[in-house]
Order: sequence, then structure tokens, then C-alpha cells
Amino acid sequence: MSSFKFADEQLAGVYRAIRERRDVRTGFLPEPLPEELLCRLLNAAHQAPSVGLMQPWRFIVIRSAEVRRVVHGVFSDASRAAHETYSDERAELYSSLKLEGILSAPQNICIVCDPDNAKGHRLGRHTMPETATYSVVCAIQNFWLAARAEGVGVGWVSIFDPEALKSLLGIPASFVAVAYLCVGYVESFAAYPELERAGWEKRMPLEDALYSEHFGRPYLPEEKNS
Amino acid sequence: MSSFKFADEQLAGVYRAIRERRDVRTGFLPEPLPEELLCRLLNAAHQAPSVGLMQPWRFIVIRSAEVRRVVHGVFSDASRAAHETYSDERAELYSSLKLEGILSAPQNICIVCDPDNAKGHRLGRHTMPETATYSVVCAIQNFWLAARAEGVGVGWVSIFDPEALKSLLGIPASFVAVAYLCVGYVESFAAYPELERAGWEKRMPLEDALYSEHFGRPYLPEEKNS
Repeated sequence: MSSFKFADEQLAGVYRAIRERRDVRTGFLPEPLPEELLCRLLNAAHQAPSVGLMQPWRFIVIRSAEVRRVVHGVFSDASRAAHETYSDERAELYSSLKLEGILSAPQNICIVCDPDNAKGHRLGRHTMPETATYSVVCAIQNFWLAARAEGVGVGWVSIFDPEALKSLLGIPASFVAVAYLCVGYVESFAAYPELERAGWEKRMPLEDALYSEHFGRPYLPEEKNS
Repeated sequence: MSSFKFADEQLAGVYRAIRERRDVRTGFLPEPLPEELLCRLLNAAHQAPSVGLMQPWRFIVIRSAEVRRVVHGVFSDASRAAHETYSDERAELYSSLKLEGILSAPQNICIVCDPDNAKGHRLGRHTMPETATYSVVCAIQNFWLAARAEGVGVGWVSIFDPEALKSLLGIPASFVAVAYLCVGYVESFAAYPELERAGWEKRMPLEDALYSEHFGRPYLPEEKNS
């Protein structure tokens, strides 16, 4: 056992946030988050790891109902186009899904990446420049987990033409629009992922995603492996 | 305040894991992680959000010293090439950095993404297919935070030719090699990021990464904004 292990309740909090985090699309409450709480969540994001310590994330906090309405239009266009690619029961199922809370969540946050920033001096990015964007995703996951622990719902919407979203929010061409989050207090957190409850997809067991030593080789626990 | 907010100690645990998580490259201890603990961490990763519930992550757990030696060779090639792009003090500083614990961490984990998997029925990926890879990064950050709470160190190495790494580990061509993690018990967790302590880069304040409503527009707190 490690002497750096957290005490029981703190450890339980980490696993609970991971287990009970949900992608929330329904049941947002209209009350805005207190400024202090939102800043705690943004600070949690800002403490994410980043390649070369480049901290390439930028957060655009959107509260304006007008901006959210236009963003919702960009979502609707992409969602309609996606719907047309499905047929029969799958198309019907798609129509029944609630996929975003852009208008109902009082805070939206667009999170972008500056992949060419000189900060970090390219360390770790010579052969894998995509790690700049990955750092931004780590920040998003920090935000999401801290939000769950605070009882705040977060939904990640990716049904957008990213170039339309960038143009709308004035995001420079060289930046990457990584995520669009709907954030707010919620009526409840679902016990299961929304898409599982709606019958869209099932979760697979961890075993199906695990290999030992080499891709495709069955996983062997430590004892049998050594 | 939300009625779904965690009790104080559990909430503190989440923020502490986020704050005290470090990218660990030195001080790994030779004792392997108990199988049960490693599985708890992998399960934490497996509970990450994923676009369309596609769960595109696959974990290759590497314990073999031989495999780690060959991987270390791939790292060394890339690191030498990166070194040659720096000059003067920056080149010297680069040489002084310890960038990975491939041989000293008893567990290495290569985490890959299957971006074309039919699971999830492409939901959320029509216009932003990159969200498959982003889901894998969310899983990595879950793993990293749970590891910190358990007192386990994790270091993310991205100084590789990803194609060389894929070839070495038998990863199919259509998959993305997202991350290579060095994992193990550690002597200590640093108070500050390694790259900051070494003088490679400084952390910037959150304020420099925050905008309101539109890219580039100064951030306005809730009270003044509405």
C-alpha cells in the first residue's frame, strides 16, 4: 500500500465522482451557478495535465440567451443531417433522444485548443502534436468530475459543424473547437447513462477492452503473468 | 446549492486528486501493483464518458521487461530527434529533463482508440469524429485521478513515433495510439509540476484562458454579465 493513498472518505469521493458522473441533457434548472462555484470548476479544469505544460485550453463561458439560441441553430442543422443517415427503427430512436441542453442550461462553455501555441516549447509534441488537444480533454474531464461532486450537471454536445461553431463564436482558424458543454444545476442524476436507458447502446464489460503485453493477447492478471 | 453535492470529505477528495495529480517520471518503486488495485484503476477508466456510448478505449497492460526495453528504444529515438531541434540553453535544459519511467515503472499501459468501431452507431461523430479519441482521453484522466487517490504515480509519455509504437505492439493500422502510461508506486509526489521545477515552462493564471460569450472578449463574472 502507498503512504500517499487518500483517507477512506476522500478516496471514496474520487471513485464516486467517476462512477456517478453523467452526460446530462435533460432536467437542467434555470438558476445560474454562483460565480464562486463556476470558478472552482474552471480552476479544476485549469489544473489538468498538459503536454510540455503548455496549457492550451481556452474557455468561452456563454450565458447570453441570444448566443445560445444561435448555437442551438447550428446544433439543429447538424442533428437533422445526422438523422437523415439513419433509417427505420434507428431513425425513430434517434428522433426520440434528447441530445443537448443548450437552451435550458444557464451556462454553456465552449472549450477550445490553441495547438500551435509556443508555450511548452513543443516538448512532447514533435511526433504527437495531437497531445495538445488531448490536454484540453483532460481539462474537460477534470471539470466534469468536479461538477458532479458539486452536484452540477454537465452535458457534452458534439453534434455541430465545428467550423460553423468557430465562426459563430469568433474562434481563430488555427484553434480547435474541442467541446461544447451545457452546465447547470439539475433535477436529478440518472442511475444509468441516458443512451443505455433509451436503448441506443449497451455498455461492454472491461474484460473486452483489456490485453496483456501485445494488442489482441488475452489479459493475464499479475500473478499468472510473472 | 445542489442537493446532489457530495459531503465535505468526499468533495475534498475530488479536488485534492485534481490538485495533487502529477506527471511522474522519477522515483517509481519496483514493487508491482496488486492486481485488485490495478483493476480498480482500469475500471475507473472504463467508466469514462464516451461519444454515443461507444467505449472505444483498449488497454494493453505491459509488464514484460523485454517489451518495455524495446519501447524504451522507440522513445530514445524520438527523444534524440527532438533534442536536435533545440539549441543552446534550451537544448541543455532538454538534456537535463527526465521524461519517462518506462523501465523503472513496473506497469506500462498503452491506451489505444478504435475510432471506426460501429458501437455507438456514430451518434455524435458525424461532424466531429475526433470525439472517439477524446473519449479515450477522458478514460485516461479518470485513471490518472483514481491513481493519485490510491497513491499511485502515473506518467504520460508522448515522445514516440506513434507508428513505430503501433507496429511494435501489434496495434491495427486503423487504431490510434493515444497514450503510453508509466504506472507504479512512487517515492513521492512533487508539490509542483516537474517542468516548472526544472525551469522549462511556467504555469499561467486561469484568467488568461477565460472569455465571455465570444472568443477574445474579457471574462465577466455572473453578476456583472446578466
